[in-house]
Amino acid sequence: MNKIEALKKIATRLRIHSLKMTTRAGSGHPTTCLSMADLMACLFFDVMHYNPENPDDWSNDEFVLSKGHAAPILWAAYAEAGIIPKDELMNLRKITSVLEGHPTPRMKWIRAATGSLGQGLSVGNGMALAMKLGKSPGRVFVLMGDGECAEGAVWEAANVAPNFKLDNLYAIVDINRLGQSEATMHGHDLKAYEKKFEAFGWKTIKINGHSVEEILLAFKRGKEKGRPTVILAKTIKGKGVSFVENVNGWHGKPLKQQDLEKALKEIGPMPEIKAKKYVKVPKKMNRARLIKRYDFKKNIYQDPTATRLAYGHALLNLGRVNKAVVALDGDVKNSTYNDKFFKEFPERSFQNYIAEQGMVGMGMGFAAKGYIPFMATFAAFLCRAHDHIRMASYSFSNVKFVGSHVGVSIGADGPSQMGLEDVAIFRPIPGCAILYPSDAYSAEGCVESLAKFEGMGYLRTTRPKTSLLYSPKDKFPLGGSKVLKKSKKDVATIIAAGISVHEALKAFEELKEEQIQVRVIDAYSIQPLDRRTILRAAEEASNNVVVVEDHFQNGGLGGAVSMALAGQARIVHLCIKELPRSGTPEELLNKYGIDAKHIKKAVKKLIRS
Amino acid sequence: MNKIEALKKIATRLRIHSLKMTTRAGSGHPTTCLSMADLMACLFFDVMHYNPENPDDWSNDEFVLSKGHAAPILWAAYAEAGIIPKDELMNLRKITSVLEGHPTPRMKWIRAATGSLGQGLSVGNGMALAMKLGKSPGRVFVLMGDGECAEGAVWEAANVAPNFKLDNLYAIVDINRLGQSEATMHGHDLKAYEKKFEAFGWKTIKINGHSVEEILLAFKRGKEKGRPTVILAKTIKGKGVSFVENVNGWHGKPLKQQDLEKALKEIGPMPEIKAKKYVKVPKKMNRARLIKRYDFKKNIYQDPTATRLAYGHALLNLGRVNKAVVALDGDVKNSTYNDKFFKEFPERSFQNYIAEQGMVGMGMGFAAKGYIPFMATFAAFLCRAHDHIRMASYSFSNVKFVGSHVGVSIGADGPSQMGLEDVAIFRPIPGCAILYPSDAYSAEGCVESLAKFEGMGYLRTTRPKTSLLYSPKDKFPLGGSKVLKKSKKDVATIIAAGISVHEALKAFEELKEEQIQVRVIDAYSIQPLDRRTILRAAEEASNNVVVVEDHFQNGGLGGAVSMALAGQARIVHLCIKELPRSGTPEELLNKYGIDAKHIKKAVKKLIRS
Repeated sequence: MNKIEALKKIATRLRIHSLKMTTRAGSGHPTTCLSMADLMACLFFDVMHYNPENPDDWSNDEFVLSKGHAAPILWAAYAEAGIIPKDELMNLRKITSVLEGHPTPRMKWIRAATGSLGQGLSVGNGMALAMKLGKSPGRVFVLMGDGECAEGAVWEAANVAPNFKLDNLYAIVDINRLGQSEATMHGHDLKAYEKKFEAFGWKTIKINGHSVEEILLAFKRGKEKGRPTVILAKTIKGKGVSFVENVNGWHGKPLKQQDLEKALKEIGPMPEIKAKKYVKVPKKMNRARLIKRYDFKKNIYQDPTATRLAYGHALLNLGRVNKAVVALDGDVKNSTYNDKFFKEFPERSFQNYIAEQGMVGMGMGFAAKGYIPFMATFAAFLCRAHDHIRMASYSFSNVKFVGSHVGVSIGADGPSQMGLEDVAIFRPIPGCAILYPSDAYSAEGCVESLAKFEGMGYLRTTRPKTSLLYSPKDKFPLGGSKVLKKSKKDVATIIAAGISVHEALKAFEELKEEQIQVRVIDAYSIQPLDRRTILRAAEEASNNVVVVEDHFQNGGLGGAVSMALAGQARIVHLCIKELPRSGTPEELLNKYGIDAKHIKKAVKKLIRS
Repeated sequence: MNKIEALKKIATRLRIHSLKMTTRAGSGHPTTCLSMADLMACLFFDVMHYNPENPDDWSNDEFVLSKGHAAPILWAAYAEAGIIPKDELMNLRKITSVLEGHPTPRMKWIRAATGSLGQGLSVGNGMALAMKLGKSPGRVFVLMGDGECAEGAVWEAANVAPNFKLDNLYAIVDINRLGQSEATMHGHDLKAYEKKFEAFGWKTIKINGHSVEEILLAFKRGKEKGRPTVILAKTIKGKGVSFVENVNGWHGKPLKQQDLEKALKEIGPMPEIKAKKYVKVPKKMNRARLIKRYDFKKNIYQDPTATRLAYGHALLNLGRVNKAVVALDGDVKNSTYNDKFFKEFPERSFQNYIAEQGMVGMGMGFAAKGYIPFMATFAAFLCRAHDHIRMASYSFSNVKFVGSHVGVSIGADGPSQMGLEDVAIFRPIPGCAILYPSDAYSAEGCVESLAKFEGMGYLRTTRPKTSLLYSPKDKFPLGGSKVLKKSKKDVATIIAAGISVHEALKAFEELKEEQIQVRVIDAYSIQPLDRRTILRAAEEASNNVVVVEDHFQNGGLGGAVSMALAGQARIVHLCIKELPRSGTPEELLNKYGIDAKHIKKAVKKLIRS
């Protein structure tokens, strides 16, 4: 049998699987699978090279299904490749199966969870860069939907790929004309897509996405040194089943049993072919081992230093002993201090320009290939990438976020630049670590702890300089805290983090002069919270607790402490309770009631009530 | 004096103001003001038509400073136009002045807060559409930076503007070559920008942004029926001050006093000209009054109905009595049920395709012009627009968000589609209302309350059908709750919302059979929370509280209740504590411990402990 015939047969098998799987599951997106069946057959059984025995083979090509709702046909392809048993397909979407409704890395060939549209290309960028960095011969194939090309995230990724000369990256757009609720803006106007990708610097190839010959030829023609290629494939949603072909209203709807039977009759019997033998296995290669140490050299500080600067120093020193660390920027590296790493390790530094979503997606790609990305921007602008951060959690990515310029303490730049809801982004994510250092030494210690931790982590840094509280020998493990002031006569506990630790210490001194002893805790680990120390402090200090933080009222440290101490202690929460404005840091800390004066007042009121 | 000379003089005045203001403030972005001074002079003193006496004049042209960090020159333009006293400029960034570091509507000519880059064009889309809808002769001018063109949000907005034939919209890109931390990707390659905007359907004009003649000509040539225009202006960052011109490293840095003196010497004395008399005032027109009623007709339901469907019915009926209501979609209107409004009111319905940031920015634009936008998508995908939502809060926008498909109760589609952190997005925003109905009647009641409320609001809707609990006469005011079960023998209180109310009621029945009486509260108003009712319930029912919600542990109802009851009650919190997966709704409610069985168990354990 010739290859063309074989691939056509495999495509038919993928169509039949997709239809059966979704009808069996009672939900899913069969018609979007049908439009890309021929593309999938060509990709998985001719174009791509991968070792079906080992998803982690360093010579494998990688695949990202950006249009994650087409998961059934991806599972079908893996089944045909012999990677999962064909019977397993009938367990699609079951609580017992890794074949979820949208791909997640619970199925071990999946590199990043998809299903929130428009993210796959940025993940592809990260993997393609990682593979170049790690000298893998593999390429990356990202299969996208036409609908998702309306997402700005696609254009953030499309913008930088040519700049990085990613000739090991292929995007394929399945242009099936129909979105979820109506036709897409461009319909079958392939030229509209061609113009956009060309304007963004890509090599473009337009094809009939149902012609195996054209598909194979496109991948041959698509190879160009120094430039990524996008294949724009005109397809028919529902292709192969006449009564759903090119018809609006079939998105996300499985066929009913009787319609399935009709469809299968139309398609004909399952073609007899052993697809597995068409899989192209690359020559095995071992990846060069990356030195990964975490015990980097700490700096010695003499003067008050911003935690964001100390982070920059720490990242640089970490990078010297840990070759898996890469740094990503969104054109603010001179503010977050990622620039120190950029200067010393340009080959491990990646500029996304002002495009936070593209940066985070790229980080997911790096993490998927075993690197440890540190992505830094203003904490406020992490909101821009919230959906990518969310998907990174479902990707179980080992990624590190750094948000600088937190809180009203940034001062005069005003509210748009203040990170006041950043903790609220990361706290809901199960298992995500959140560290918030108060001085330069704790900042460096937190970087060490976050780097060591295999999982998602967030470091919150402050713009102004803060005085030194710790020594380079102090450790800042996840889930810890520092009891900075403690006596047997404590009548209240002040729980602070970051800049408010310094205000708490000032309040401590002033209260002491009035013979009022309070405990002061630096809760640098907002998540996991050191519940035991906090509980004990509350118990030992009359169950009077003042939490003070430079964050909005809801979603931050105050919420974490309230939940930890529910029913145990009286809590006064000093935080930002209204929409803030420009001013000096001191004025704003006062105006919004989180400075020493307000802490002192809160303690006194609490112990007298 | 001829116009060209006058505009050049005004540009010089704007430059001098910008330099002085930022040096006085000790922070700010003077060099980015200098690059756009000639553009600003032409815009504010020749191209745009506006009534300096009245920012709300319906015939005014509108201006959006997308590159919000250039605020000083915007304030300077308003001062020169006679809108604010010139002395006020020296109060830039002070806590007492509305001239903040980045524009906010505290200064009444500002329509939407900017400073998080890449958002202005989508706001411009919304205003341009609103002005067409409301028959304003005005146009919208959006001044953007070149750096921010890396943001995907720009391309979401650029994508739909030609589709809406927004010939009353002008984008101006100040291409000054330098970003914050380094040169932009395209530098002074104007063709690169031209290709992109052309590919996205815009009329493009390339000019020297320092030539007043070219600028004026561009706006004349830019008028084209049925298409928006972008003017690509090649400029020099720091233009006019030789030692900062085109030099990297000057972003966000004011001149020191001695450098300022040097710069002012170079520029020469403040040109004598009364700029105010060059302002072009349009013919005054009154806006047609929009009928705005909120008491829409409620539907009668017989069977279990999804709250998302009831929302769709309510929006339709609201739209019939309230002509200020507009509906926005991101191609999921058949799932959120915005489609009912789309069908009946196509002229007030706006499709952004799969582009949530563009949708939210557009909504901010509509709100700025007095409309009430209802923007609906899957709750999970609101994460994509988190930064726009954040900026809408600083814009004091009267915008309504609707997030459907919340929680694990969506079932088999899997985690990427589950809204589990959506409440955590909105709770931190001071003053934002969050309503979460449990049945069709409460859904309609919540829509009425949200529509009436002048401010940001969020409605959380559920995918599966839920049984009816209320009647069409029941009211659901912000800050309320419904005590569904209550007795004098209550030993615990179950606080639930949305789908978990139904699980709580099941648990109530089962507990009752075991002679355990519990109170059940439907806390449909998550924010503001009905603290009084909850406190009282806790007190009356042994201070045993079980909170149960289909949301991640942190950031949701449990946190709100914990903060409200700090020190008052023992709280057990049932919620989603790990990263979830695909399965049936029932299986998932059970697996993650938020169904009736788990509630019952939690109550029993709590009252026995």
